[in-house]
Amino acid sequence: MPFCGPNRYNLSPKEAHLPKRITVRTGDYQELFDITERVASAVRDMHVYDGVCHVFSPHTTAGIIVNENADPDVCADMIARLDELVPVNAGYRHAEGNAHAHIKATLVGQSAYIPIENGRLALGRWQGIFLAEFDGPRERTILVTVVAE
Amino acid sequence: MPFCGPNRYNLSPKEAHLPKRITVRTGDYQELFDITERVASAVRDMHVYDGVCHVFSPHTTAGIIVNENADPDVCADMIARLDELVPVNAGYRHAEGNAHAHIKATLVGQSAYIPIENGRLALGRWQGIFLAEFDGPRERTILVTVVAE
Amino acid sequence: MPFCGPNRYNLSPKEAHLPKRITVRTGDYQELFDITERVASAVRDMHVYDGVCHVFSPHTTAGIIVNENADPDVCADMIARLDELVPVNAGYRHAEGNAHAHIKATLVGQSAYIPIENGRLALGRWQGIFLAEFDGPRERTILVTVVAE
Repeated sequence: MPFCGPNRYNLSPKEAHLPKRITVRTGDYQELFDITERVASAVRDMHVYDGVCHVFSPHTTAGIIVNENADPDVCADMIARLDELVPVNAGYRHAEGNAHAHIKATLVGQSAYIPIENGRLALGRWQGIFLAEFDGPRERTILVTVVAE
Repeated sequence: MPFCGPNRYNLSPKEAHLPKRITVRTGDYQELFDITERVASAVRDMHVYDGVCHVFSPHTTAGIIVNENADPDVCADMIARLDELVPVNAGYRHAEGNAHAHIKATLVGQSAYIPIENGRLALGRWQGIFLAEFDGPRERTILVTVVAE
Repeated sequence: MPFCGPNRYNLSPKEAHLPKRITVRTGDYQELFDITERVASAVRDMHVYDGVCHVFSPHTTAGIIVNENADPDVCADMIARLDELVPVNAGYRHAEGNAHAHIKATLVGQSAYIPIENGRLALGRWQGIFLAEFDGPRERTILVTVVAE
């Protein structure tokens, strides 16, 4: 992860900080899709030394999670438990069959923020950033916004 | 939604970016109250072109949700499911009778953030912003803060 | 809470806004640990008049909650209900025995943000900020980042 200081490329703030879009193709109906490297790369491209990185899902059936990305069993446990709490079928009124996905996305949240320190995401040792897909597989687009200090 | 560039009114950052308060009167004990237009209007008034909009609930029994605002059944399903997970009465210790509301507000969260792009909230096509009322009806005040880039 | 204007100490933005670390030692396996005063103090030290305060947990089994800090029964009810929804033991795959803690941390979220107004956290009258410990007791470090307007 080569470091690039904020002024190395003489970028104007506008160029540096406009939201960047990350597009991914999820593979399952429900899954946690690791986007840590994609977000880290977007942040590096913005050449921000200190600030805050916001990750936003503009979708209503997919959220954003920051949690362990070391043991994939954690992701499997999380999807399974969410499915116990909000089953795919439970007499919902919403006719499209994905009411559960809207509710799960709300429980985990549509966004996350991570501090940026010394040009890097200040994630904990075991943390990764995930798109939480609850109605896939689909193409999903995530917005990464950086506010520099 | 007429666009106003950040310098059109020669506002100082202070004038432009202080938190704006939105006051609403919810109508039910539990409901998702759509505040999308109120937040969008507050953001337009701040004349910010690019940045991040934070929506914060200073209440402990009402949260903030970003989710579908097209089919009202989604809101009804969400309230109903939250009520299954955290029933109004379940032997709570808190004597005021609204422990469930504190817990639901925590599950959905006290705040949301939405990127601002080209002077507009970069919400997804189906997304709206809701005050999630769990102990109404009440007057509620929401803080909208914008950080410009 | 003495107020210090942003220029009182002629701090450069860098000095003022770098993430501050708050270290706490939780006392129970699961608890809500009040960090309101620690965060407020960190914000005062940054001498920011208007802006946004972000509180981030770099841990995967502890989250951040903003909710009532008046009646401790609310905290007890919240832990108890989360434990009903995500029991400590429920046939999880993750072998470390703390899968429940990862899931609970995801449900409450890894971060919170609070507006700063007139040099103070704009928390509601009954709101406090808590580290939500789900796999303690442990030493935990929280990152507080302020973006000034």
